[in-house]
Amino acid sequence: MTRLSEDDLIARYFAPLALHPGAHGLKDDAAVLSPLPGESLVVTTDALVAGVHFLPDDEPGLIARKGLRVNLSDLAAKGAVPHGFLLSLALPEGWTQDWLAAFAAGLAADATDFAFPLVGGDTVRTPGPLMLSITAFGLVSGTTVPRRTGAQPGQGLYVTGTIGDGALGLLAHTGRDEDFRSFLSLEQREALIGRYLLPQPRVALATAVKRHAAAAMDISDGFVGDLSKLLAASQVSAEVWLDAVPLSPAARAAVAATPQRLETALTGGDDYELLLAVAPEHEAAFENAAAEAGIAVARIGEVHGGAVPPRFLTSGGTERIFARGSFSHF
Amino acid sequence: MTRLSEDDLIARYFAPLALHPGAHGLKDDAAVLSPLPGESLVVTTDALVAGVHFLPDDEPGLIARKGLRVNLSDLAAKGAVPHGFLLSLALPEGWTQDWLAAFAAGLAADATDFAFPLVGGDTVRTPGPLMLSITAFGLVSGTTVPRRTGAQPGQGLYVTGTIGDGALGLLAHTGRDEDFRSFLSLEQREALIGRYLLPQPRVALATAVKRHAAAAMDISDGFVGDLSKLLAASQVSAEVWLDAVPLSPAARAAVAATPQRLETALTGGDDYELLLAVAPEHEAAFENAAAEAGIAVARIGEVHGGAVPPRFLTSGGTERIFARGSFSHF
Repeated sequence: MTRLSEDDLIARYFAPLALHPGAHGLKDDAAVLSPLPGESLVVTTDALVAGVHFLPDDEPGLIARKGLRVNLSDLAAKGAVPHGFLLSLALPEGWTQDWLAAFAAGLAADATDFAFPLVGGDTVRTPGPLMLSITAFGLVSGTTVPRRTGAQPGQGLYVTGTIGDGALGLLAHTGRDEDFRSFLSLEQREALIGRYLLPQPRVALATAVKRHAAAAMDISDGFVGDLSKLLAASQVSAEVWLDAVPLSPAARAAVAATPQRLETALTGGDDYELLLAVAPEHEAAFENAAAEAGIAVARIGEVHGGAVPPRFLTSGGTERIFARGSFSHF
Repeated sequence: MTRLSEDDLIARYFAPLALHPGAHGLKDDAAVLSPLPGESLVVTTDALVAGVHFLPDDEPGLIARKGLRVNLSDLAAKGAVPHGFLLSLALPEGWTQDWLAAFAAGLAADATDFAFPLVGGDTVRTPGPLMLSITAFGLVSGTTVPRRTGAQPGQGLYVTGTIGDGALGLLAHTGRDEDFRSFLSLEQREALIGRYLLPQPRVALATAVKRHAAAAMDISDGFVGDLSKLLAASQVSAEVWLDAVPLSPAARAAVAATPQRLETALTGGDDYELLLAVAPEHEAAFENAAAEAGIAVARIGEVHGGAVPPRFLTSGGTERIFARGSFSHF
């Protein structure tokens, strides 16, 4: 096999994605970002390691797209419109051009779909597993964004989309839960696996988040744990109505067959939905903006005062305790 | 040993460095960068892998500082003043709090010395070697920076500091060149090793680079190879006077003992000096600005027309050919 130099590799696979004007076609050592007056750049970074954050044999294009999307989800949670990204890629021994071509094609697909051009990066060799580190830039007007710290008593708690599909999808993907075959259809299993492999970042909601959310974060390490983190950062508590937490048809079927799977759905990771606290006077406008953006949002509880853990209530009014608050890849 | 959660690790070791106002104390998922009107952000990223870019047993504080400094060198080459950095850190099995404390102390020392606060980052586990990926932000006025592509015939070619210490220092550090002990003093060997372990980014020259350089890059993969890259990007050639290329006393002693070590000095990596093309009408002002900044610069040649390789001339006027143009970590 012909080995490529780093320069040839960049020219062949990554320069075509470097459509950001400040990227200089990846022909230089640095990029230039020039926000307009009155705009700020929102910056977030996520590293993914083969065998830790994804399976080494996952389809390379899906690995690339997941890497972009977990960062796009963080931008959306801060109300930022995608602007561009940096890619640091550590290639293991035995990497192939076929693998890299498929990886770059996945990057290109999402870079186009989300208007999210490559700005720069670095490519190195590693004796260890493949690792990618993506730094994402988004734009907001002004200099402030919704933080984890902005929740206050009386605000409504919202989540986007459906909760738990990613965690259940991981079980289905790895075959660790063989029972899935007995009570989920092939389509339902594929729907869950798809949510695990390819998150749906709520980019279309960014402007509404910036305008209406008092506090926001994306749900990546489990709904229960991430909600607890947001409330703790804001030094408040909450009441959550479990029946209001939206589940997909496939997740509902999985929970109906084995009720303890609700714990997996609500505490497992990989949702990449948004969790928001919205002040009462903003709730109607927020719900309208979400409807216009075509993104489902559900009001799943209310922020309460007090530095105590949130209460998760069933429809009967009894409290449910979750043994495992949060998933951590670390 | 007590294991830290990721949140505790960040709070203990990295939050104290997050003095950038947009970092929000690392308590959120994203940072906010707000350049003033008329300013742009310059962005560069470099990844370093244990066993590839540094030795696993190198002192952790030096690894951290080298990681910062190779990025600061890229910023200086683009004329950008340090603004802040992101750190992605992949920790291997068996990492210790002592290691991390020393690493963070090294980061803190350079973050303070270079007025370069932590802005954000990510910490993950890896089954492979330790890896760090640093993204550096600098500020420039306007929207343009000196690129590799700006060299034109008639301009003077300059380098900062001294060339070859890093490559010779690596030989001394690894003990691969035992002869060093016979003709270099302990102080000379330590000087070379110090240049390899702890580059001296020419941050103080950034403003002069922005104002006076037509083309610029930092020398990280060897003087001969990097010069060739800059000239190729600019579609020009050059004449270089080898006697004008500045060598440190230790490097001069190493070359005097074994003349072929000049090849190592001029083609090996890890200089982290700047290479600049300066138009004739800017040369005097550039030299004055460098003197004021306290950074030695040497005019080592001139840009010529033509898409041919540069000529490296000895004092006798004969041309020297370098077998190995460039070092690549890739």
